[in-house]
Amino acid sequence: MGGSFALALKRAGLVRRVVGFSPSDTTRQRALDRGVLDAALPSIADAARGCDLLLVAVPVAATEASLAALRAVLEPGALLMDVGSTKRDVVQAAEIALGDQITQFVPAHPIAGKEVAGVAHADADLYQGCQVILTPTAATDPAQTARAQALWSALGCRVRTMSALAHDSAFAAVSHLPHMLAFAAMNALTAQTEGADFLALAGPGFRDFSRIAASDPAVWRDIFMANQDQLLVQSAHLRQSLLAFEAALRANDAATVQSLISQASAARAAWPLPPATTI
Amino acid sequence: MGGSFALALKRAGLVRRVVGFSPSDTTRQRALDRGVLDAALPSIADAARGCDLLLVAVPVAATEASLAALRAVLEPGALLMDVGSTKRDVVQAAEIALGDQITQFVPAHPIAGKEVAGVAHADADLYQGCQVILTPTAATDPAQTARAQALWSALGCRVRTMSALAHDSAFAAVSHLPHMLAFAAMNALTAQTEGADFLALAGPGFRDFSRIAASDPAVWRDIFMANQDQLLVQSAHLRQSLLAFEAALRANDAATVQSLISQASAARAAWPLPPATTI
Repeated sequence: MGGSFALALKRAGLVRRVVGFSPSDTTRQRALDRGVLDAALPSIADAARGCDLLLVAVPVAATEASLAALRAVLEPGALLMDVGSTKRDVVQAAEIALGDQITQFVPAHPIAGKEVAGVAHADADLYQGCQVILTPTAATDPAQTARAQALWSALGCRVRTMSALAHDSAFAAVSHLPHMLAFAAMNALTAQTEGADFLALAGPGFRDFSRIAASDPAVWRDIFMANQDQLLVQSAHLRQSLLAFEAALRANDAATVQSLISQASAARAAWPLPPATTI
Repeated sequence: MGGSFALALKRAGLVRRVVGFSPSDTTRQRALDRGVLDAALPSIADAARGCDLLLVAVPVAATEASLAALRAVLEPGALLMDVGSTKRDVVQAAEIALGDQITQFVPAHPIAGKEVAGVAHADADLYQGCQVILTPTAATDPAQTARAQALWSALGCRVRTMSALAHDSAFAAVSHLPHMLAFAAMNALTAQTEGADFLALAGPGFRDFSRIAASDPAVWRDIFMANQDQLLVQSAHLRQSLLAFEAALRANDAATVQSLISQASAARAAWPLPPATTI
C-alpha cells in the first residue's frame, strides 16, 4: 500500500522526494532498487523528520506504536494518514499516541488491494479509480481533511468522508462478513471426512466465492478483533437470511426459495461496481 | 451448454451431422446462422429420430418431459445424456420416463458454465480442461458409460464416475451452499436500512464473493429443491463453522480467531484449481 502510494504520488508530480522507513534491510534495498523511494531509513523518526506528508502503512495492530514514534518528529502543518481497514481502533490509537498532534491526523482507508503485498508489488496504478474513505477524528483540523481529499482525488480516487463508526459498520457488512463466510465455508468443508474429495470437484463459482479465504491470517485476525461488535451484528443478519432459505427448503416451498433468490439476484445485478479489473 | 457441446464435437471431428430441437423459432434460426446446428426442428421427437448421440440440455425441471418425449424415437444403441447440475432427481426422472431404455442413459454434469446462457454464447472451448461427472444409473449399460467417458475425454475433459448421491453431496458442499450463502449475503444487506449505502462501498473482494449471487433464480430454485436434503446438511456444517468464529469473537479470543482463519487460508491456498480463466 505504501509503495504504491509513493509511486502514484511521484507519477502525478505531487512530491519532490519520498523517504521511507522499514526495519528490514531487504525491504529498504528493494524499495530503492525499484525507484519507489529516494531514501530509505531504518528509523521511523529519522525517516519522518522534515516530511510534510506522512503515510503509515502498517498492520492495524502496529498503528499505535508507529503513531507514537512519529509524535516527536511531526512537522507543524504536516498531514499524517494511515491506510487501515478498520477505523475506530485507529482513531482510538491516535487519541492515545498523538496527543495535540491529532489535529494533523486524517484516518484513511483506500479500498484497493492485491492478493500479494510488499514493495516488490508496488504499483502506481493501484489507487486509480478506487474509493478512499476518510474518517477524520473530532479533533482533526478540517483543513487537513480537505488536503487529504484533494490528494487522493489527484491520484484518481473517489473520496468519501464519514464517521469511523459508519465506516466500520459498512465494512463489517461488505468486507469483513464476506471474509468470515469464505473462511467458515472452507473450514466447514475441511471439517468433513469427504472434504478433500468435495474440494477436488469445485469449479469456477467456488473459486471466485472463496478467493478471499486465502487472505493473510494475521491481518484478518486484527481486522476481526478490531471490528468484533459490528462483525457480530452482520453475522446475525446473515444467519437470519440463511435461516429464511433453510425454512423454505424444509417446507418444500419452491415459490419462496425462488423469491429469495430473485431478490438477491436482482440486487447483485443492479450493483454498479464495474467488474472489469481483478485486483 | 448444448450449443457448446455441438461446436466442440464438430471441431473434434466426432460428428457428421448435428440436429437440434428448440420450441423457439429465434433460437433455431440463431443456431443455424451460427453454424452450431446442421438442422433445427420444432419437435423433439423429429429432431432425435436417427441420432446415435443425444444430449438433453434443458432446465432440470424439464428433464422428465424431455426424456419421455425421446423414449419412442430413441435408436437402439444410441447414447443419451443430460447436463443437469443435480443428479438424483435426473436418475429418478429417467427411471420414470425411459423404461427399459434407461440402459442407454448416462447422466452427466460438466462443471463448466458462463454468466451468459443461450446459443448466441455457444463456445467450442467451453468444456476444454473442465471436469465432467458421470452418474450412471443401476440399469445403465456399462458400455454406454464407457462411450460417454471416451467422448467427453476427446473434448479435453477430465471425466469422473460416481453415484448420484455422492455427486449431490459434493455439489451441495462446493456449489449449492456457496450460491445460497452469496444469495443470503445479498439479502442480509438489502434487509438493512443502510444496505444501499453499504453496497456503494463494496470493493473487489465483495465483487468476486458475490458474483454467483447474480445467478438465474429459476435455475437455482430447481437445483435447491432437487438437492434440498444435502443442501440443508451443508448449511448446518456452515452455521457450525460460523458459530465457532462468533464464539471466539465474543470471547475476545484473538488466538482462536487467527487459528480458524489460518486453517481456512491454508486450505484455500492448497486448492489446486488453476485461477487463470474466468468463466
